[in-house]
Amino acid sequence: MLKLHDYLSSGNGYKVRLLLTQLGIPFERIEHDILQGETRTPDFLKINPNGRIPVLELEDGTCLSESNAILFYLAEGTAFLPDHHLARAQILQWMFFEQYSHEPNIATSRFWLMHGELTDERRAGLEQKRPLGYAALEVMEQHLAQRTFFVSERYTIADIALYAYTHVAHEGGFELGRFEAIKVWLDRIRVQPGHISILQT
Amino acid sequence: MLKLHDYLSSGNGYKVRLLLTQLGIPFERIEHDILQGETRTPDFLKINPNGRIPVLELEDGTCLSESNAILFYLAEGTAFLPDHHLARAQILQWMFFEQYSHEPNIATSRFWLMHGELTDERRAGLEQKRPLGYAALEVMEQHLAQRTFFVSERYTIADIALYAYTHVAHEGGFELGRFEAIKVWLDRIRVQPGHISILQT
Repeated sequence: MLKLHDYLSSGNGYKVRLLLTQLGIPFERIEHDILQGETRTPDFLKINPNGRIPVLELEDGTCLSESNAILFYLAEGTAFLPDHHLARAQILQWMFFEQYSHEPNIATSRFWLMHGELTDERRAGLEQKRPLGYAALEVMEQHLAQRTFFVSERYTIADIALYAYTHVAHEGGFELGRFEAIKVWLDRIRVQPGHISILQT
Repeated sequence: MLKLHDYLSSGNGYKVRLLLTQLGIPFERIEHDILQGETRTPDFLKINPNGRIPVLELEDGTCLSESNAILFYLAEGTAFLPDHHLARAQILQWMFFEQYSHEPNIATSRFWLMHGELTDERRAGLEQKRPLGYAALEVMEQHLAQRTFFVSERYTIADIALYAYTHVAHEGGFELGRFEAIKVWLDRIRVQPGHISILQT
């Protein structure tokens, strides 16, 4: 059986849990408390030298890290990843956008607000990340204003990747009030068959 | 003919130039001076609403952004991107690592040191990015210690993605002195057929 090294409130872990569930693939979830440094132990660094969850451990022991690479791996040959050459590149474009322009601002702000003390350094970090996070949401809003999903007008791993931290953006201090197209899209994702919520295992 | 919206000293732009050259695909390079805000004009935002180079403009006018998504698009069906399911996911794993753990630290430090004034804010930013950039180099070093290339013992787009900013890491204040495996790997990349340097057009 596949093993998923995970941390329950992580959006990056949630992406993989959500896709595995929607694909009907059974998996064993192994929780690592990142707040207790459990992803920086010698044992964990053997499965991901970069010290991060999620890690998908295949049946032969091979370990794959980086949430969006795991999504791409699992979705191959399914409806979540079309065969079309350009569509696949566009899905990757949105997944790289997510990891570069969205996650470091929205997910990191959320992490700081959810865990630990709000030090002056973190407060300054939040200030810096706020306009960058809103800029990423603006890019999404503009794209979704004329579309139902991110790529090819169907639900793909690009939507899963961007849903993960967008639907909890308020926990990072980002208000979605004026992002009408994003709100409609979030509702559309929530009604996809087999949808689970972020804390649901 | 393909058009590449580019900025010459950008490692992200260089990745695409290098692959196009090694594939023997002709392209027209369009320079945008990011220091003059030329990627934030209304015209540029039409080709990439996220306001960044590189953008690959296809013959039908379709625009693809995110350097690593462009690499994946161009490499499909070539020796730079193997067909093997797991190998492709591992290539993506390293490309997401590059955009999340490597580029924001090493490339951003390089940009700050190459352009503009070294303000107190930038100095603090450099301090913060230094250990993170070195941590990314450590992960690469450990992986390369027993391998010739990042994935499948062959030159792929994972190597191109990581070469782009690693070979100029010194311009970001990162010394490669103790990273023996990385240095050998850099030399191996430089002798691949059709290699060009970052400022070569």
